[in-house]
Amino acid sequence: MTISPTSLTPRAVRQACRDGSWNYPSTAGICEGYVQANLVILPSKYADDFRNLCARNPVPCPLLGETKKGDPTIPSHLAADCDIRTDAPLYRIYKGGKLVEEKKDILAEWDDDDSVGFLIGCSFSFEAALINGGLTPRQIEIGRNVPMYRTKTPLAPAGRLGGHMVVSMRPYPPEAIEQVRDLTRPFIRTHGEPIAWGAEGAAALGIDDPEGKNPDFGDASEIREGEVPVYWGCGVTPQLSVMDSKIPEIVCGHSPGHMLLLDIRDEDVCQ
Amino acid sequence: MTISPTSLTPRAVRQACRDGSWNYPSTAGICEGYVQANLVILPSKYADDFRNLCARNPVPCPLLGETKKGDPTIPSHLAADCDIRTDAPLYRIYKGGKLVEEKKDILAEWDDDDSVGFLIGCSFSFEAALINGGLTPRQIEIGRNVPMYRTKTPLAPAGRLGGHMVVSMRPYPPEAIEQVRDLTRPFIRTHGEPIAWGAEGAAALGIDDPEGKNPDFGDASEIREGEVPVYWGCGVTPQLSVMDSKIPEIVCGHSPGHMLLLDIRDEDVCQ
Repeated sequence: MTISPTSLTPRAVRQACRDGSWNYPSTAGICEGYVQANLVILPSKYADDFRNLCARNPVPCPLLGETKKGDPTIPSHLAADCDIRTDAPLYRIYKGGKLVEEKKDILAEWDDDDSVGFLIGCSFSFEAALINGGLTPRQIEIGRNVPMYRTKTPLAPAGRLGGHMVVSMRPYPPEAIEQVRDLTRPFIRTHGEPIAWGAEGAAALGIDDPEGKNPDFGDASEIREGEVPVYWGCGVTPQLSVMDSKIPEIVCGHSPGHMLLLDIRDEDVCQ
Repeated sequence: MTISPTSLTPRAVRQACRDGSWNYPSTAGICEGYVQANLVILPSKYADDFRNLCARNPVPCPLLGETKKGDPTIPSHLAADCDIRTDAPLYRIYKGGKLVEEKKDILAEWDDDDSVGFLIGCSFSFEAALINGGLTPRQIEIGRNVPMYRTKTPLAPAGRLGGHMVVSMRPYPPEAIEQVRDLTRPFIRTHGEPIAWGAEGAAALGIDDPEGKNPDFGDASEIREGEVPVYWGCGVTPQLSVMDSKIPEIVCGHSPGHMLLLDIRDEDVCQ
């Protein structure tokens, strides 16, 4: 099966993931205008804490929906005929808070009696608004994955789950920041406006990477002369929270940049 | 008019505030079981930013409700026949981000064409649960206002409004912390479970006051031998945010500890 990344429907991408024929290095720019979701799959005994973590930290962890316990079907208003175990491009498997494997499905890890899957908004949703505003994110311009950083900003903990916020970074000249903020503010269920920017913002978050070359996740970027880093809450946060909270059981997530394509559109998660 | 702080209804307290006969040093412990609210009153052009600030930072800024533009009436499902300009015990007036006056009403400051009032949940709501669990907060035991601290934890900014989280502190022995967390977790619209505790938590928040003697707001407390500080998000946060954001126009808030009594009960803001 030959796949063209443009002109595909989200359902076709999910089907290609399911049958093993999807081989793109990231879902960035795929199915423009459709929402992509971060995934976390947990034993049900942590579901209340996870829901509460999202409610208390909506900027990095905007909860779009969840599966019923044991049922791998995504709620149909988010995606039709969608199986959380097979329909994302790439998954990460954690045990005791450690990454143990990366694989194309989680059929073996999903527990039909107990697993619960959560879908979290992704900043890809607001990137079309930035592009349309003439402010194309650098990583799209240079064809890479967005750079992501662990910060020292603590999450409001929820029961067993805590940790620190993860952010994504896009560089802009200081005079563009107000427009960048205005363009991304309406996307309240996909991280909204930036949380910090500039040298002062980087210092407050505990990030020391003035050229954008050494992110903790994703790819290196380029912060050019006359630009400053701009940071947004990132949907990798809940996955890191689960790792940092050292849940002993198996927990699964998507692989960063390899998101689940949904049938809802960016304007559906916009204010 | 002689007022007994027990056996009063919220409406009677509001009436006493309105007619000027309320003279208690704080509303802590008044009308046990009823929700008390933090107040912020702003020019309408900042209302969207303020609403967004609360949505992005629900732990320190849990929004309970708001007035219509220019109409000082509190929504009737929160309190009957309630005027936000006169029915709280004591108000603070800010200009250009500076506290300029403390007074018993804001009739002169309210703009009938433009002001909007916001009501934010207060941690007094979960203190009854702590008392019933045998974990009476220290400041109630010693008859003082709760100690509050500015932190270095940044808020997720919203347009013109940003700043840092304010926390309230209650000391407990480390072995009681899980119970304290469990008892306060359900109060999701009044700050919920603590955000940090112990020496490590204090360091993460940037608080250096190991005996609890030097809070930024409220009264000194006593952290005794074998106890550690436990910190909750605090409804003074949005008032500080407005100050730190240096809005040039007049902004009003309640005076810390002098809250507006509502007709809804603690169980109404509980999960």
